Amino acid sequence: MDKLNYIVKQISKTNKKNYENYVVTRIWHKLNSLDYKMVTQQYITRPNGKHALTDMYFPQLGIHIEVDEGFHKNNVISDKIREYDIVNVTGHEIFRVDVTKGINDVNKQIDFIVNEISKKREQLGDKFEVWDPIKEVSSETYIEKGYIDIKDNVAFNRIVDGINCFGVTYKGFQGGGVNHPIEENVFLWFPKLYPNNSWINTISTDEKTIYEKSAFSEKVNAHINQVINNERHKRTVFARVKDSLGDIKYRFKGKYELNIKRTLSEKQVVWERISTRVVTYNSNNN
Amino acid sequence: MDKLNYIVKQISKTNKKNYENYVVTRIWHKLNSLDYKMVTQQYITRPNGKHALTDMYFPQLGIHIEVDEGFHKNNVISDKIREYDIVNVTGHEIFRVDVTKGINDVNKQIDFIVNEISKKREQLGDKFEVWDPIKEVSSETYIEKGYIDIKDNVAFNRIVDGINCFGVTYKGFQGGGVNHPIEENVFLWFPKLYPNNSWINTISTDEKTIYEKSAFSEKVNAHINQVINNERHKRTVFARVKDSLGDIKYRFKGKYELNIKRTLSEKQVVWERISTRVVTYNSNNN
Repeated sequence: MDKLNYIVKQISKTNKKNYENYVVTRIWHKLNSLDYKMVTQQYITRPNGKHALTDMYFPQLGIHIEVDEGFHKNNVISDKIREYDIVNVTGHEIFRVDVTKGINDVNKQIDFIVNEISKKREQLGDKFEVWDPIKEVSSETYIEKGYIDIKDNVAFNRIVDGINCFGVTYKGFQGGGVNHPIEENVFLWFPKLYPNNSWINTISTDEKTIYEKSAFSEKVNAHINQVINNERHKRTVFARVKDSLGDIKYRFKGKYELNIKRTLSEKQVVWERISTRVVTYNSNNN
Repeated sequence: MDKLNYIVKQISKTNKKNYENYVVTRIWHKLNSLDYKMVTQQYITRPNGKHALTDMYFPQLGIHIEVDEGFHKNNVISDKIREYDIVNVTGHEIFRVDVTKGINDVNKQIDFIVNEISKKREQLGDKFEVWDPIKEVSSETYIEKGYIDIKDNVAFNRIVDGINCFGVTYKGFQGGGVNHPIEENVFLWFPKLYPNNSWINTISTDEKTIYEKSAFSEKVNAHINQVINNERHKRTVFARVKDSLGDIKYRFKGKYELNIKRTLSEKQVVWERISTRVVTYNSNNN
């Protein structure tokens, strides 16, 4: 997708939200750089565990902007949206723009935020990676890098792009996961982390724990036994989410390990995060 | 209306026209000045006499911007829109933005236009009047100035604001016009210059001629005789129009004079423009 097309689509989500459109476009145009990726209407998890939408999000910087229109914005989103890409904002900065005090005031607030964005980029120095829409979703990028880290906001378009980060070069893939081609006892898992027809899956607000259970009560125990008896007690997880444009993505969540004790006592499979970064492999390693 | 509110409303007309929204907001934010008034979706009369819409219009400068999305934009508006505020673009500049060639190219085109806007303002020098939403619709402004000129894009919110430019201080006014309080034989006229229930009125594309006729065939001749026999053969005209936000305005069109010969031969009242500027009067003059 061309950057213009992407940005125009992001901005188009502010259709009919006129002040939001003014603020979002002004920040974008005043920032005046194609180095930044920008997402509008990003679902987030607030530190209190509640879900909300921020109006504008810079994933490379962990900066969010919220437009405050003066009336109460019912910004607490129900758990129903869990299929969407939800960003945990711990460590992120959230700026608010109050649009109730006239144009000079609004423009001044926006100038301040644009300046903060530039400062944050400078602080990141070499760690700041220029926005490259093709590079950010290609396996090669992370193979070259040597790892995938949740800090890099990695979300692939296809399951196969995730799998190909680990030593294979598949053309396509059908299914919810596959054994890690190189690491023993690791499974590459691409689950829906929200209740669906077959599974009652959830992820904790801090994303440190994933709960997995069959949606059919008669199958719950068999599933638990099967997971425990299988030797693959570690899972590298890419959760299936809808991104801000409604497209399906597979977002990297980290590496998790089965907690057998909790699984047995809680009567659902409990996966605990053991790493926020996983090693990637060139296909020559295989 | 606060400038923010006004600008946000103008931009909101580009809702669902995503590339237009990108271009319009980018020009506005990059121009970065509250000195300019900006109108989106301005009806214009092209030199060929056809009506069209331009995507963005700077009335102080006579500059229009059209966004070219690559597909055929059916930009010829039917005569039905004649009740809208239609700007005659003679002497205006029209810039086009081609949005089909990627973001860098679009941004470059916009930078060029923003630069042209600034240049045009410089060329105007002292003749450029900073945008002042209150001043531009108040009678006092034009009384102080000493005249109303079509070059100044004068459109009042109420009929009474037009009347009060000519030596009176009415609180309100009902009706389609009034005798000029000071100048003899002049009528201040606030007509609908498009066919309506009572009148078949039109204005020529070059705005130099106004045609007036009763909508009831049995009354046409009586009306013609009445106009000719009345001693007021000059009219200062403020046409009732819907502006770009759908609000009613009374746009100054100039001073017109009855052409008796043409009126008799064409069997409709023919008014011909004799001046694009009229003198204003302080109420002390009365």
